[in-house]
Amino acid sequence: MSNSHIRGILAPAVTPFGMDLQPDSTRFIAHCKWLLRSGCHALAVFGTTGEANSLSVRERKALLDELVSHGVEAGRLLVGTGCCSLSDVAELTLHAVKAGCAGVLMLPPFYYKAVTDEGLFRSVSETIERVADNRLRVYLYHIPPVATVGFSIELIGRLVEAYPGIVIGIKDSSGDWDHTRLLIGAFPGFGVFSGNEFSLVDNLKYGGCGCITATANVNAFAIRKLFDSWHHDNADMLQQRVNDTRAILGRFPMISALKGVISRFRDDEGWRVVRPPLVELTNHVVEGLLNTLVSQGFVMPDISGEDE
Amino acid sequence: MSNSHIRGILAPAVTPFGMDLQPDSTRFIAHCKWLLRSGCHALAVFGTTGEANSLSVRERKALLDELVSHGVEAGRLLVGTGCCSLSDVAELTLHAVKAGCAGVLMLPPFYYKAVTDEGLFRSVSETIERVADNRLRVYLYHIPPVATVGFSIELIGRLVEAYPGIVIGIKDSSGDWDHTRLLIGAFPGFGVFSGNEFSLVDNLKYGGCGCITATANVNAFAIRKLFDSWHHDNADMLQQRVNDTRAILGRFPMISALKGVISRFRDDEGWRVVRPPLVELTNHVVEGLLNTLVSQGFVMPDISGEDE
Repeated sequence: MSNSHIRGILAPAVTPFGMDLQPDSTRFIAHCKWLLRSGCHALAVFGTTGEANSLSVRERKALLDELVSHGVEAGRLLVGTGCCSLSDVAELTLHAVKAGCAGVLMLPPFYYKAVTDEGLFRSVSETIERVADNRLRVYLYHIPPVATVGFSIELIGRLVEAYPGIVIGIKDSSGDWDHTRLLIGAFPGFGVFSGNEFSLVDNLKYGGCGCITATANVNAFAIRKLFDSWHHDNADMLQQRVNDTRAILGRFPMISALKGVISRFRDDEGWRVVRPPLVELTNHVVEGLLNTLVSQGFVMPDISGEDE
Repeated sequence: MSNSHIRGILAPAVTPFGMDLQPDSTRFIAHCKWLLRSGCHALAVFGTTGEANSLSVRERKALLDELVSHGVEAGRLLVGTGCCSLSDVAELTLHAVKAGCAGVLMLPPFYYKAVTDEGLFRSVSETIERVADNRLRVYLYHIPPVATVGFSIELIGRLVEAYPGIVIGIKDSSGDWDHTRLLIGAFPGFGVFSGNEFSLVDNLKYGGCGCITATANVNAFAIRKLFDSWHHDNADMLQQRVNDTRAILGRFPMISALKGVISRFRDDEGWRVVRPPLVELTNHVVEGLLNTLVSQGFVMPDISGEDE
């Protein structure tokens, strides 16, 4: 049995911006509430897909406060807090704990390359010591394709041993199912999320916690259906269907593609905006993407039930 | 003739921390003043060597304010302001401009990989537009071995063309002299600093601005001597001597090695402290490093003249 407080399908919610590139809390709140209504068990806000590292600490804290004060349950939020700066990680983590969030998703500091496990251990341990709150639950965020720096198996073991009940899980975005499977087997009770839905059935079969996947921003309903049916006869068919959708989205820069799709089903141009260094998709490209998705069986999401 | 306001030898000053890992402004001010007395024409504070990305925006602003208020001339400071977050870059850049600093040294946003030149152009241009101050002078900070993301020749050309007199130079820490030489030739008036002293004589011969080099933190006097003598008969000998010192320091993690050496010539244990994810050298290792340096002709710096 995993120590994870949460399991299932989590969307790493995208972060909307206005035309002035300022974070748009109104659109953000609506999107997060809709994701929870659409099948997500919880949300991983301020991750890679959420353009979190393109936001300041102040902007991240303000958005989280807005979300919780507008009725998004803090217990259903995993908050990305990993930054290059130790002071920023500690400030964001403390803030998330005080807000009552289910946990934090912590990138390693990713500026310096070729750092040692000892240095990364100190980064995490110093943060935990500074926060000094036994409500803290840390999920490590392993995403070497983007962050370059990652958590080795040895380092994870050391952290789990040093902070039992605090360092309780990981999101494995290595993109390597063999690595995810190894993690699930390595540490009893450790909550292992896959970083995409390709291996969702396998993740659950081997005892993982589910997945935290970018595409849930537009395809939560189908991915949730797969989660609920993974041990049924139709699981392979459902898995194939969500894989197809992901594969099509994966032909484009993912964050811009997700925002493009959202802009269409919400009929809201403003949703296309991304912060530099990302670049939005043109309307023309979004249209082509949507046509391809729909021709492959993708169902445009239902956004009814707003402002509940 | 280069548009650069500054040229010569710049130390990317290391940032000292207390045992509690808080930035130590007293040691920082003393070190910066000493560097300027020891031959540095100017300082590049808050760069890679300065562990800037391990600091919060607040910490960086506070340290800069302390430095200037304690008499370090702002006109001799290039301030590192590049971060992943657009809002942070804009805030730090505006702060440096208001403080009257000679310029800023701007990393590209480095979290997302495989970003486009268009996205990176927008990052820099949006910052320039937000700062909206014609005193702003931007030096691009190209250091792909650490940041992974860099500035392509095409992108540099586009920025120089869009912001003449504002985007005026670059620090090339590619570690590739052929690349630096290409940059010097490519853009008339563009100020090109080498990221180390290995190619200092060549940099000056071809019309570059000098170098911004980590080792100046402990070897400023010798590197300055080479700068002043680059067209003299003894230049090769002086170049070889600084190269030897750098090669020895390069056998160790550079920032920890520099702080270790400083801790010895200042007889101040506290100077060894680095912030995670870096790890300090042990006293034993520092001792071995210093013995090797001295046996190869390195002269321990003179720290007299403090509190002038």
